Amino acid sequence: MKTITANRKELFDTRTLILNAGTADEMRQRILSYFHQTFDIDEHLFEVFADESAMYKRADPLRHPLIFYFGHTAVFFINKLILSKIIDNRINPKFESMFAVGVDEMSWDDLDMNHYDWPPIDEVRAYRKQVRERVDQVIRETPLNLPVNWKSPFWVIMMGIEHARIHLETSSVLIRQLPLKYLKPVGGWKICDENGQAPANTLLPVDGGMVEMGKDREHPLYGWDNEYGQHKVELKPFKASKYLCSNGEFLEFVEAGGYREEKYWTEEGWSWRSYKEAEHPLFWIKDSNAWKLRLVYNEIAMPWSWPVEINYLEAKAFSNWKSEVTGRSIRLATEEEWYRMRDLAQIPDQPYWDKAPGNINMEQYQSPCPVNEFAFGNFYDIIGNVWQWTETPISGFGGFKVHPFYDDFSTPTFDLRHNLIKGGSWISTGNEATRDARYAFRRHFYQHAGFRYVESENQVVIQRDVYETDPEVVRYCHAQYGPGLHGVPNYHQAIAEMCIERMHGKTGRALDLGCKTGRSTWELARAFDEVTGLDFTARNIRLAIELQENGNMQYIFPEEGELVSYHQINLKDLNMEALTKKVAFYQADASNLKDLYTGYDLILLNDILDEMYNPSKLLNQVHERLNDGGMLVIASSYNWDEERTEKSNWVGGYREDGEPVWTREALNQLLSEHFEQVDKDEHLPSVLPYSKRKYEVKNIEISFWEKR
Amino acid sequence: MKTITANRKELFDTRTLILNAGTADEMRQRILSYFHQTFDIDEHLFEVFADESAMYKRADPLRHPLIFYFGHTAVFFINKLILSKIIDNRINPKFESMFAVGVDEMSWDDLDMNHYDWPPIDEVRAYRKQVRERVDQVIRETPLNLPVNWKSPFWVIMMGIEHARIHLETSSVLIRQLPLKYLKPVGGWKICDENGQAPANTLLPVDGGMVEMGKDREHPLYGWDNEYGQHKVELKPFKASKYLCSNGEFLEFVEAGGYREEKYWTEEGWSWRSYKEAEHPLFWIKDSNAWKLRLVYNEIAMPWSWPVEINYLEAKAFSNWKSEVTGRSIRLATEEEWYRMRDLAQIPDQPYWDKAPGNINMEQYQSPCPVNEFAFGNFYDIIGNVWQWTETPISGFGGFKVHPFYDDFSTPTFDLRHNLIKGGSWISTGNEATRDARYAFRRHFYQHAGFRYVESENQVVIQRDVYETDPEVVRYCHAQYGPGLHGVPNYHQAIAEMCIERMHGKTGRALDLGCKTGRSTWELARAFDEVTGLDFTARNIRLAIELQENGNMQYIFPEEGELVSYHQINLKDLNMEALTKKVAFYQADASNLKDLYTGYDLILLNDILDEMYNPSKLLNQVHERLNDGGMLVIASSYNWDEERTEKSNWVGGYREDGEPVWTREALNQLLSEHFEQVDKDEHLPSVLPYSKRKYEVKNIEISFWEKR
Repeated sequence: MKTITANRKELFDTRTLILNAGTADEMRQRILSYFHQTFDIDEHLFEVFADESAMYKRADPLRHPLIFYFGHTAVFFINKLILSKIIDNRINPKFESMFAVGVDEMSWDDLDMNHYDWPPIDEVRAYRKQVRERVDQVIRETPLNLPVNWKSPFWVIMMGIEHARIHLETSSVLIRQLPLKYLKPVGGWKICDENGQAPANTLLPVDGGMVEMGKDREHPLYGWDNEYGQHKVELKPFKASKYLCSNGEFLEFVEAGGYREEKYWTEEGWSWRSYKEAEHPLFWIKDSNAWKLRLVYNEIAMPWSWPVEINYLEAKAFSNWKSEVTGRSIRLATEEEWYRMRDLAQIPDQPYWDKAPGNINMEQYQSPCPVNEFAFGNFYDIIGNVWQWTETPISGFGGFKVHPFYDDFSTPTFDLRHNLIKGGSWISTGNEATRDARYAFRRHFYQHAGFRYVESENQVVIQRDVYETDPEVVRYCHAQYGPGLHGVPNYHQAIAEMCIERMHGKTGRALDLGCKTGRSTWELARAFDEVTGLDFTARNIRLAIELQENGNMQYIFPEEGELVSYHQINLKDLNMEALTKKVAFYQADASNLKDLYTGYDLILLNDILDEMYNPSKLLNQVHERLNDGGMLVIASSYNWDEERTEKSNWVGGYREDGEPVWTREALNQLLSEHFEQVDKDEHLPSVLPYSKRKYEVKNIEISFWEKR
Repeated sequence: MKTITANRKELFDTRTLILNAGTADEMRQRILSYFHQTFDIDEHLFEVFADESAMYKRADPLRHPLIFYFGHTAVFFINKLILSKIIDNRINPKFESMFAVGVDEMSWDDLDMNHYDWPPIDEVRAYRKQVRERVDQVIRETPLNLPVNWKSPFWVIMMGIEHARIHLETSSVLIRQLPLKYLKPVGGWKICDENGQAPANTLLPVDGGMVEMGKDREHPLYGWDNEYGQHKVELKPFKASKYLCSNGEFLEFVEAGGYREEKYWTEEGWSWRSYKEAEHPLFWIKDSNAWKLRLVYNEIAMPWSWPVEINYLEAKAFSNWKSEVTGRSIRLATEEEWYRMRDLAQIPDQPYWDKAPGNINMEQYQSPCPVNEFAFGNFYDIIGNVWQWTETPISGFGGFKVHPFYDDFSTPTFDLRHNLIKGGSWISTGNEATRDARYAFRRHFYQHAGFRYVESENQVVIQRDVYETDPEVVRYCHAQYGPGLHGVPNYHQAIAEMCIERMHGKTGRALDLGCKTGRSTWELARAFDEVTGLDFTARNIRLAIELQENGNMQYIFPEEGELVSYHQINLKDLNMEALTKKVAFYQADASNLKDLYTGYDLILLNDILDEMYNPSKLLNQVHERLNDGGMLVIASSYNWDEERTEKSNWVGGYREDGEPVWTREALNQLLSEHFEQVDKDEHLPSVLPYSKRKYEVKNIEISFWEKR
């Protein structure tokens, strides 16, 4: 193995690339260099093994052994280059399967309990060499156009590089869990030797203000899918701890018996603590009477001034205890609060700094350091040292889209069970050390992560943007808000336009009965003053309300087999933001409609007639719910089905006295007393998509009835 | 009640109308007159009641009482005039419901066991009067264009008239089952008083020849739906009994113990006989030692020379007994044989004769008469006296269509359980007495019907054209052979054309895997020499074979709720008659395909890939089934579903090593060894209809592969 330790500067002092600068040739050279540096540092970390057999042991029972990660960062390049069709041939199909799927918190997969017959390390080294050469060749030979962006083949190269940078950090955490006997110091690593008393922590004021988050698509740095979009929050002033919580400060909690008091823990936290029988942070070692701290490859006397490294659940328990003992309302910072502090500190982004302003990017130490070493204004460690757990579960910003070649990077974590960590650690390099990086892990998970606590009136906003997957609801989402379907105009827009047109400029109040996930209700609100959307299925209405309340909603559409696409729907994109106050959505039973739904100028029975269990009941009283001169619009494909509607309640589609009764004609009979038919019937196709290549079409017939 | 008996000539001597003759005014007058005559004769029959309370008794436990039929023939006019929108308002909605649906063998309804609260007869009479006036007005006022045909409003009037004529006969059969004490002679009826010995019957030769059946749409007489279309059969010479089987001849069978010998009966026949405990024909009465015969309103000493009146099952048992005792192969005549005899006898059709040439149309008697009274050449009673049961279950002729205003007249009887009766009886009037009339009843049913027996080498051709109703099969029938669907071109034609085009003039043998009900197989046969159509579903293949063997097949498509449409598909209409010998259909499992399916120049995987439980098995060996340079065409929408295909057998649509594997790309891998892709992929929408206004669309992707 090449000796890498020779050039510490070249190995550690790297930055993610500015992708819109310089010439194409320069860019190609910078990517080539960044690639080699990354491959080098990846291998550099694995110099830690005194006994390479330890690479085959599971450091964490829930994770692969380290040999997997040694192969994985290389295999990832080949798999993504194949997927993106930049290369045609595999190097080693067996390796490229075996080393493909990790078991970590970036993925949602449960542990794969298969027995892996991992290959000898020399074979993996030889394979890594082949990959290095292949990727080198790809970088040299692939046409390069500036800027390198999301659609460029070089984005896939950057994806491989930044992916390796993530694993540099996560592998170091796994190594930190292996017995010391297998390990040796890594050449060139500088462990901080400052090890004083913990400084007394204190809450200092932070100015309120607007926080703007989310990159635009032209941002010059590589980013993962979750970094793009828009998210804007106005924060009130709050107070934040001057330092990250130190080992010394955390000891008070441990000594106060915090690990044995359920009341400080969330339900999830107590469940984790009980399962683990945790008594103190994972990397703390109680050796006779003295506390020690486990680092990546060594143990040191407990550095009380260094930041404590814990998971979110422990940090949260500490905050609750702290609230109790101080009588103040203490919690972790939110993602927005962290951004506010970073913005106020005016920290340049990683590629633009001369020297890391904190313990980050491996530019200072290869370990944490005291919480009072790197100041940013009144505060310390705004970035660097250890990551900072936040109160915020990760979700996509407005406008979120997955990258086609890594569509499962983030979406599996948008489940409210993964909290964001911010600020980076001493070993965060590349994208990890940039302002906009957004990584999230399960709340019980360990990284090089601690926390800063705050006293704040700002709400912890949890974007409940779990991706909807209920097939029935998803079909309506896709039909109503999704991309154009097979060249058929959007029925839900078209039916609303048709209604509006028939009102001849009259507006007022409208009722959209059978709105499903609400699109037609919104479209009616473009003309009407007030529109109520009702649907029998609460799951549909939930999505409609989510869009109204959050300004966005998300769903996953099944495209082919288990392959899916991710969709985020925004009011803004639909030009519907101004309509938010005009619409209201409720779950309701149209067959037994409450009296309060009355006084409308338009009632639209929106493809609901044949879904009701008692359509006649509504038809017989619908005139009472309309204002004088009001309009009733009936849109239906008359697909009567005994499973939904008892035959005796069908409006038509049956034989009476031996003769066929077609629904459209039965409506004439039923409605003639209170309505006059106006205009002629219209027809619209309504598409309900089932997959990429399969959909259902109803040919909806629409009749218009003016109240007499 | 008006005295009707005054003018016997006017009452009995009526004929169905020639609808393309004379002026419009004349036509209107003739229809008016025919209508009144029909209304009159209908009421005339009901003069038979000495005690009108008997009209409320069930003559047959499985039928309505006579009061129903008295109302029914009037109600029918109003219901059909409403349905056809010729009139807008009902006269008496309650009556028009209560008297609407009969319980008879023209309908497939089971007995409605509801208790009916039948109205007093005077109310029904008053109602009939109102109907007479209303219809009279309609006939006088509706615009009339010549010729009166299937689409004319006057066709609906004719429908009402001819419908009443049918019930004149069927009601007379019901009255014949009421106790005599309730009845009295009907004024003006002439009962035949010839009552001699039965003549000895004998078999006489009938020349073979071509029989052409089925009216064209321009035929000048009113007809029911089942009379139209084409049916052509070449008959060999056969022998037929000179006379209808007489009571005297049938007595031999009774006295030989025929009713107690299971061996003479069909299974259905024996089951009926056992249930009824029948010992002799229904209308025979054994009075001490003398046999008597029940007529409509009286009993007479048994007229041995008159035709026996029995059901098909009894006639069949007689034939089997007769075969045994004569050592000859005796059976009933088929429908075709009856037509052959009628054609040879050159009998003019009813409206064109001066005087009925047989005991028919009430022109001779109001009863049967001796079997040797009316000669037609060497034979007697080719038409008239009593109906003649045939061996032929009724079915539609090629080109059969239902009439939109009476779509359930025939189709419920196309079930192989209703046999045709031919020739008419003494009380058959109107359409019933015409050459082309085709009535059929359950084989156990009683009408004024007997039989003629034959010794014949002609096959009893049973058109197995039961209407297919299995929803899954029907959808494919409609998609493949039905009317154009929603403006989308027929996928099954288009895919075949695409294949043929890609062969560049090369033909040979083709395999259509997943042909469903076979359309694409036929379409491929337009170019290929030999095409095998395979499908996993035997129900699909059955329809494909039916079309091939019979030249036609039938299905019922659900349009709206329980309302359906009837479809008959003909090879001739599709211009596919010449292809019959080029196609072959088999049920087969494409996932485990027999070795014999080999040596093809084209193999089409026709939307079957994602329906197989093991698609890879086929794909891995499909090259062995192709001739050198052969073409493989894969058409699929890749809708993988674990219910059909285990996930481990999906060709694509899954993640492998974390990366998406799309089916289309997986095919490239799977097929590259033995195939070269030719041309670019194509796409065709494939529509599967579920109802009039709902259908499923698959967007089928088609790739073309040439064997290396």
